[in-house]
Amino acid sequence: MNSMKKITFSKRFPDMPIIGSSFAGSLDHVIPLSYGFPAPESFPLDTMVTATERAMKTQGSGAMSYTGGSGISNIVNWILKRSELREVYANKDQIIVTSGSMQAIDLVARTLTDPGDEIWIEAPCFFGAIRTFNLAQVNLRSFPIDENGIIVEHVERALIEATTLQQKPLPKILYIMPNYHNPGGVNLSVDRRKKLADLAYEYNFIILEDDAYVELSFDGTYLPSIHSFGPDRVIYLSTFSKVIAPGIRLGWAIGLSEIISKMRILKTDGLTSVYVQEVAYNVLEQLDIASHINNLSTMYKTRKEAMVAAIKEHFGDEVSFVSPEGGFFLWVTFPQGVNTSAFVDDAMTAGVSYLDGRHFFLEEEGYNTMRLCFTYCNEEKIKEAIKRLAEIYYQHLRSLPMEEAN
Amino acid sequence: MNSMKKITFSKRFPDMPIIGSSFAGSLDHVIPLSYGFPAPESFPLDTMVTATERAMKTQGSGAMSYTGGSGISNIVNWILKRSELREVYANKDQIIVTSGSMQAIDLVARTLTDPGDEIWIEAPCFFGAIRTFNLAQVNLRSFPIDENGIIVEHVERALIEATTLQQKPLPKILYIMPNYHNPGGVNLSVDRRKKLADLAYEYNFIILEDDAYVELSFDGTYLPSIHSFGPDRVIYLSTFSKVIAPGIRLGWAIGLSEIISKMRILKTDGLTSVYVQEVAYNVLEQLDIASHINNLSTMYKTRKEAMVAAIKEHFGDEVSFVSPEGGFFLWVTFPQGVNTSAFVDDAMTAGVSYLDGRHFFLEEEGYNTMRLCFTYCNEEKIKEAIKRLAEIYYQHLRSLPMEEAN
Repeated sequence: MNSMKKITFSKRFPDMPIIGSSFAGSLDHVIPLSYGFPAPESFPLDTMVTATERAMKTQGSGAMSYTGGSGISNIVNWILKRSELREVYANKDQIIVTSGSMQAIDLVARTLTDPGDEIWIEAPCFFGAIRTFNLAQVNLRSFPIDENGIIVEHVERALIEATTLQQKPLPKILYIMPNYHNPGGVNLSVDRRKKLADLAYEYNFIILEDDAYVELSFDGTYLPSIHSFGPDRVIYLSTFSKVIAPGIRLGWAIGLSEIISKMRILKTDGLTSVYVQEVAYNVLEQLDIASHINNLSTMYKTRKEAMVAAIKEHFGDEVSFVSPEGGFFLWVTFPQGVNTSAFVDDAMTAGVSYLDGRHFFLEEEGYNTMRLCFTYCNEEKIKEAIKRLAEIYYQHLRSLPMEEAN
Repeated sequence: MNSMKKITFSKRFPDMPIIGSSFAGSLDHVIPLSYGFPAPESFPLDTMVTATERAMKTQGSGAMSYTGGSGISNIVNWILKRSELREVYANKDQIIVTSGSMQAIDLVARTLTDPGDEIWIEAPCFFGAIRTFNLAQVNLRSFPIDENGIIVEHVERALIEATTLQQKPLPKILYIMPNYHNPGGVNLSVDRRKKLADLAYEYNFIILEDDAYVELSFDGTYLPSIHSFGPDRVIYLSTFSKVIAPGIRLGWAIGLSEIISKMRILKTDGLTSVYVQEVAYNVLEQLDIASHINNLSTMYKTRKEAMVAAIKEHFGDEVSFVSPEGGFFLWVTFPQGVNTSAFVDDAMTAGVSYLDGRHFFLEEEGYNTMRLCFTYCNEEKIKEAIKRLAEIYYQHLRSLPMEEAN
């Protein structure tokens, strides 16, 4: 066996750095602000049991078969109806239920692109999407966001340049998270939504609208989806991960039936767990969803406010951020020259985890930023975590030579 | 919108024919022998409810999170322990839980190959695997099976030719279904298992051992897995689809940790439903699995025997087949010149569905074969279906011009 030949792998695997602290596994004393986890106490555990009972009674073996029983269309109809609140109007040929919206991102990317094609993204951008696009072997190009989301003028200029100079490729896909951006926490303005949809028609690309956080509005207001301005050029994604539980792995994509039908072909793992779909539908039937979402939003708003207050108390004007009006994340910008990667391990040792901002960018940037998740921990823990984080940060600053600390 | 530009799709989509009858949807009067469905009356519906209750109580929110609670390792340990019965010995770094074994096939293919690489398969071969490999844009080459599985001499000759003549590429993967082959119904002999493993080491390819049907042995005998002869060159796949229920979508792959870790990266949809894993583990704890599998095997054996008897009664010596000793399928060969595709729609109209054999081949062959599933319907229905099938077949023969009917 010493002469064993090496196994060769596909070229699709990029070098991927460890995200967050390099500590393997979480430590018991750590207050985690790093990953985007919903509050576990919000999971409807009891309802899962009664919903399972009801699914088994109403759908029987259909709920356990490859193809589902009649109940399989229930959840599809529920999602379609709910999507109308987002001004997304579609029929059942235009929706595919996926294993979380992560699978939908993967399917859209591989349905519409070949290796070497172009996908444009935001900067910063959800690292899971970056990773998935890298594995699809596409070329990525990013455009900055500000407090109103992606700066559309930059995108338009790039499209014009690509068309007129004919030197650069047009994108096949523009990936956008319009509401409570991960990690930026901002919302895309209505004007920019409309403008992006216009550009998608003009330059013939597909907007991949990842709306994972839309339900979690702290003030109960909602902007119309990008899809509402360009139904033929937008694939709309969302998920039950944030409002029911991520562990069930249930998301969806809505768009042109000709795209969805190709995604169905590429979805070689078969229908997403029919059993989960039936149970989830019965959970939705049994929960008062409006009140459930209201409770979640209230809880998360309180936690966000606790985090904002603690940051103001311990960091003062040292950092800046846009206070998010929903979602999971607060995106903190430190002074230029600060490298949040440099103290991520020290923070972990001191009992607080965060994600250093560089992971959300393609280029060597974002070093002075970090993402904090405010949904998983209660206010007390959040306050303690921010206090520890400030201690580690100022310790780190003091330990630097003078010129670096500037 | 009349001037709307066309959407361009990835080149990965091959032309794919409709499999089985071209009738959309199933008709109420049809007795389905086409798809590989387990007996729905065998699904443990009540146990799902009590298992859900137990999962929610023992694992709580962990069973609904992205990462799972401590229970997530329970099912992994269960699978690893069970795999030892197949002489597959592995640790937790060597297993990945997937959305059915279909997802595992896809992940292995894309982890080990780039477009244009070579995957070798059996002829006939499970059409789902063919479709998945086509979507991975590999080149496929097939080797015939006989009553002892794939004819290894053909494979060895091709490997020698590829190496010595250096004109043809070596395979990256050889996909094999060793037990109760889909669709062939045959078992791969132990000698051939051992020889294949030796070839995998010598020519440095990976055997993808799809063992979906292994538990369903009608006489309680089991052959050692190919993995047992070549653990460093075999990825072993199996699934709960055949022994619990397919709708839960729970399968796995076991192999070298360096391959499994790459598969984890490529599995961009995250952990397979943690909730399903927790519930399934509790089902396995509550079911007497030995007795459950024994009941399934007894039921399926009786159905298989009913099908064999009905074929003998209605077809006599007109057709030939190997009577399977387990699994789901009976593979029927008609006289040369018969084209089973020619009467698949007529059979559907007459109330019986089957899969015409050509779908299981790469080349233009298999026209005189068909796959019949004996697990889904009870004996009475099976007898009636075979009777109708014979009527349609002989009608079809009579309607042909003399020279074609030869």
